[in-house]
Amino acid sequence: MNNKNSGVDIDLGNACSKNAYSWAKKTFVNRAGKAGEPRIGVDGAFSNVLKFKDARIGISSDGVGTKIELAERTGIYHTIGHDLMAMTVDDLAANGFEATSISNIIDLDFLDYHIIDAMMQGLHEAAALAGVAVTGGEIAELGPRMNGYGDKMHFNWCATAIGILPDVLDGPIDGTAVHAGDIIISLKSRGFRSNGFSLVRQVMTDAFGNDWHTTQYDDEKTWGEMLLTPSIIYTRMITDLVEHGILPTGIAHITGGGLADNLGRALKASGLGAELTNIFAPADFVKNLQERGKISEEQAYRIWNMGNGMIVIVRPADADSAITRMGEMGFEAQVAGCILPKSGITIETKGCHPTTLRYTDTNK
Amino acid sequence: MNNKNSGVDIDLGNACSKNAYSWAKKTFVNRAGKAGEPRIGVDGAFSNVLKFKDARIGISSDGVGTKIELAERTGIYHTIGHDLMAMTVDDLAANGFEATSISNIIDLDFLDYHIIDAMMQGLHEAAALAGVAVTGGEIAELGPRMNGYGDKMHFNWCATAIGILPDVLDGPIDGTAVHAGDIIISLKSRGFRSNGFSLVRQVMTDAFGNDWHTTQYDDEKTWGEMLLTPSIIYTRMITDLVEHGILPTGIAHITGGGLADNLGRALKASGLGAELTNIFAPADFVKNLQERGKISEEQAYRIWNMGNGMIVIVRPADADSAITRMGEMGFEAQVAGCILPKSGITIETKGCHPTTLRYTDTNK
Repeated sequence: MNNKNSGVDIDLGNACSKNAYSWAKKTFVNRAGKAGEPRIGVDGAFSNVLKFKDARIGISSDGVGTKIELAERTGIYHTIGHDLMAMTVDDLAANGFEATSISNIIDLDFLDYHIIDAMMQGLHEAAALAGVAVTGGEIAELGPRMNGYGDKMHFNWCATAIGILPDVLDGPIDGTAVHAGDIIISLKSRGFRSNGFSLVRQVMTDAFGNDWHTTQYDDEKTWGEMLLTPSIIYTRMITDLVEHGILPTGIAHITGGGLADNLGRALKASGLGAELTNIFAPADFVKNLQERGKISEEQAYRIWNMGNGMIVIVRPADADSAITRMGEMGFEAQVAGCILPKSGITIETKGCHPTTLRYTDTNK
Repeated sequence: MNNKNSGVDIDLGNACSKNAYSWAKKTFVNRAGKAGEPRIGVDGAFSNVLKFKDARIGISSDGVGTKIELAERTGIYHTIGHDLMAMTVDDLAANGFEATSISNIIDLDFLDYHIIDAMMQGLHEAAALAGVAVTGGEIAELGPRMNGYGDKMHFNWCATAIGILPDVLDGPIDGTAVHAGDIIISLKSRGFRSNGFSLVRQVMTDAFGNDWHTTQYDDEKTWGEMLLTPSIIYTRMITDLVEHGILPTGIAHITGGGLADNLGRALKASGLGAELTNIFAPADFVKNLQERGKISEEQAYRIWNMGNGMIVIVRPADADSAITRMGEMGFEAQVAGCILPKSGITIETKGCHPTTLRYTDTNK
């Protein structure tokens, strides 16, 4: 089974995104020399920095995706706000921005006051964890355009976060400062975060039928509850490191595409490679699901975060203090590997069938 | 027929929005004294201003809503980018912000490269009209969670715009500066913009059946094409006025709720009222639809903009020069009425059955 069979075409998605970006790039001229001018990075690509007077602002949009179905299946609506927050603010954090504000849009078929209340309560909790203010929102009733599981309100939830680049940073963290020998720190993830759920659902359906979420995972929780496990929000940890003078040379938020794609993007500017010999293993329920679906190690690490939600690259001298700070803030972190002098990424995996994955073409 | 019958419950929607905002407000403390701190307005409500160093930033999220079905029905995908732009940036303009940047999210069932290409081309055109850069984007494949008309790609499109408050303004334009005797200028709208389409669709279905969009409206265009008429984007006109020293005392973007609700909101801070004796009439096809649906004048002005897309309130001495600037920029504008010393809004309507509508409780 691969992700294309589960309804997601990664190549076509990349082509559409690339084309959409080419249209977007043509609009940058509209702000040339004005407030909000987009800054161009070293490689000619948008650096994600908008200049407003003295402030350098970043902007990031994302949604919870099909993980929402887990909320619909379990009737638990107060955790997905953590996923929404994580998906948007941790993309900002991956460039060194301190996330400050988020504006959210709930698209739904029909209004359910109590469901929306639970969702917003969760977003409020997540905002406290992220150190962010919810400064905008929109609820749109779209009737039968929205679909989902069961008879209750169906919805989609997306958001845009903005953040500011701390003064101590000369520019966004874009991987240009990465050097061979830098230390790679992994931050533990406790579940699937908000990516790869098309494949998750397909494995579950094949294993347990249409109402798979009601199957007990263990004595305490159903599979639905396990899969709903909310995303850890890392952004405050990055801000804290920077405030303490520990400036990461590169950061990767592990979303769709997994470790290799996302770390590869962080290494693109330097053209360097990485060896990951000591990453976190995924949570037991993730391994259980991988096993049931007969998902290969290669496939699992391509689609899912497999227990590693964020990668932070630091100078060797900063590694110990970085991990100490992360621990003090309640994040599980460990040295996962180091930066190599030439391109290519090697991962000693920790899934059901540990192996060594070698990626050669990671800096495209 | 009313809008509740057509599937939209305005009272419940307001209750949900109010509750969502109360959760959001509790998060403002997360940025107290920090970058991105939300500023509180005179009436204790969020003023929509975020302070980043010397820059005062506004943020606005919205979507095209069910107008997307018109694109699906007609197969014309390059105009709804204008609607998306207008819905977000003109909300910023209504507070005096110069819109600078927009980040968009396309949620879809399955990818269609050419449809997305046409959409982005349209957003690129709209960005030029708005003077805005498209600086972020996300395409999310949600499979059968997304629904719509016909067999092609179904989607929803929303966006968040950010803007900056010009230095010449002491604060956002929030209506506190409105005085009795100020002149109300209306900006012409050429169609339904992006609101009230639930009622539009119901009238059309009752009149022409399920494939109503294929019915000819006149020799040149179908009903589908007429209803797709893109929104005028006003934001640059507001920025231009401010740059020329013409500072509006209040502005209302006429969206859901119509003239009375949206103008009422702009008059809330002052507690004053308005008399609109000379607004624009709606386009002929809007009147035609109103007539077919037997929509009362009261209902039409509550749900639709009825030919008036934005209201700009200026000091009497600024009225002539404001209208001249608007005309030079290609916007049809006329004096529509004036501000009265006490609350309440009176509208001499221009729909199918002209009458005088009186609203007493407009400053809540």
